[in-house]
Amino acid sequence: MITVPKLSLADANNIVSACIDKAMEIGVDMDIAITDDGGHLIAFQRMDGARITSITISIDKAFTASAARKPTREYAQSAQPGQPAYGINTSSQGRFSLIAGGLPLFAKEFIVGGIGCSSGHPDQDEAVAQAGVDRFMEIIA
Amino acid sequence: MITVPKLSLADANNIVSACIDKAMEIGVDMDIAITDDGGHLIAFQRMDGARITSITISIDKAFTASAARKPTREYAQSAQPGQPAYGINTSSQGRFSLIAGGLPLFAKEFIVGGIGCSSGHPDQDEAVAQAGVDRFMEIIA
Amino acid sequence: MITVPKLSLADANNIVSACIDKAMEIGVDMDIAITDDGGHLIAFQRMDGARITSITISIDKAFTASAARKPTREYAQSAQPGQPAYGINTSSQGRFSLIAGGLPLFAKEFIVGGIGCSSGHPDQDEAVAQAGVDRFMEIIA
Amino acid sequence: MITVPKLSLADANNIVSACIDKAMEIGVDMDIAITDDGGHLIAFQRMDGARITSITISIDKAFTASAARKPTREYAQSAQPGQPAYGINTSSQGRFSLIAGGLPLFAKEFIVGGIGCSSGHPDQDEAVAQAGVDRFMEIIA
Repeated sequence: MITVPKLSLADANNIVSACIDKAMEIGVDMDIAITDDGGHLIAFQRMDGARITSITISIDKAFTASAARKPTREYAQSAQPGQPAYGINTSSQGRFSLIAGGLPLFAKEFIVGGIGCSSGHPDQDEAVAQAGVDRFMEIIA
Repeated sequence: MITVPKLSLADANNIVSACIDKAMEIGVDMDIAITDDGGHLIAFQRMDGARITSITISIDKAFTASAARKPTREYAQSAQPGQPAYGINTSSQGRFSLIAGGLPLFAKEFIVGGIGCSSGHPDQDEAVAQAGVDRFMEIIA
Repeated sequence: MITVPKLSLADANNIVSACIDKAMEIGVDMDIAITDDGGHLIAFQRMDGARITSITISIDKAFTASAARKPTREYAQSAQPGQPAYGINTSSQGRFSLIAGGLPLFAKEFIVGGIGCSSGHPDQDEAVAQAGVDRFMEIIA
Repeated sequence: MITVPKLSLADANNIVSACIDKAMEIGVDMDIAITDDGGHLIAFQRMDGARITSITISIDKAFTASAARKPTREYAQSAQPGQPAYGINTSSQGRFSLIAGGLPLFAKEFIVGGIGCSSGHPDQDEAVAQAGVDRFMEIIA
């Protein structure tokens, strides 16, 4: 048996609140999802002006970041035509996200979850997710 | 054109907090989902001891209650073998929930959303969802 | 942050070998799946005479037992027509299994995974899964 | 009637063990799947540090290699934009894998199965799968 750290709901909500602050700061309402180490949803918030299609996209970004243990932006690069992971987005019933805005959460060497944000430009989505990662770094400091 | 009332994220979180209070009162950690009038997720919270399978079930209950505009318990009755809605649970890609714990939110004659709770006995799930409906009634009073 | 125990691949293979011994003892080739606490596959073995359809069934039983934290047999009872969980088998894209042969693995109060067996009569499937639970109890003793 | 060779579970496990040895040699924990001539799973192992998303990807690579009877790398080429198999990765419910790391197993002219590996760079995945093919060549020598 192995022993691993795990996110609580309180941790997840703390992270989400940092994302919402950032989204308000840049003026783009977002869908924000937090998943655990298995890619399963812990907390979700859709700000009043966020897109309906981005509900699933944000959840899938968080799923991908936590279950594949990488920023979704990195897959966006390696999944381009001619690149080694081309086509990977149809795996996991099409849930494997290639769009920037999904970031993994690591506590030392352990993956503990992921953040997925969507509704803005992917650069904005990732900036909002990064605010959540920064908050998480404070939590585990 | 028609003018309709719509749930805000603040409303949804207010409703969720009433559900969490009730879940803590009865001592059963729950997955709690709030959907809008289109059946789309606004807010989700998984309490630390809630089931993984109930993530989807709670979201599906909220989807069904808001999009079909009825408590999921009522469909459980009409979907029994020999009854008129038998088999309806395979519709919407299997998301049409027959299990008590999904309740619609009406503002006067307007459907504005749904609450879905899961992880306990369906009677417990419905009691926790009802605490959310009660809070909503205070919001719109 | 919370700290939880987790199954290793060595644990999973140890459990599978106990299931295979039991399957050989009763003379029924089985599909045998071990999942982690998030319902994700760790190890799978299809004995030479086991059914093709039971590949998915065994994996889904293990998923259900671990992610819903109950023996699948219990859901078989509560999901009968007229019972409270009627229709639950269409949730999780139809992966929620109602057929005996899925058993959860608990280390004290923590869910750490599930065993799913299929190809025989469900009573045989469950007996083979139980042999795996018994082995797990020795591992954590 | 035709007589065809078929992989046993013992063969599959023998192949997997060669893959695991190779994965340990290169220092990348892998998800490893072996399928039969019908593309159906025989054996699966997730090494402790392997990715959750790669469970499905490794199984899909093995499925594709055995059922399409080609290395997945070859499809990556013919599925590029402007090439004849462009879009093929959405077939089989998105399970048709274009990512290197899936290799078919042939006994003379007969397809008998496939190996799928995932969690590293696709070149690493394919090197680990190739170690399994090499072992298989010893088995049938």
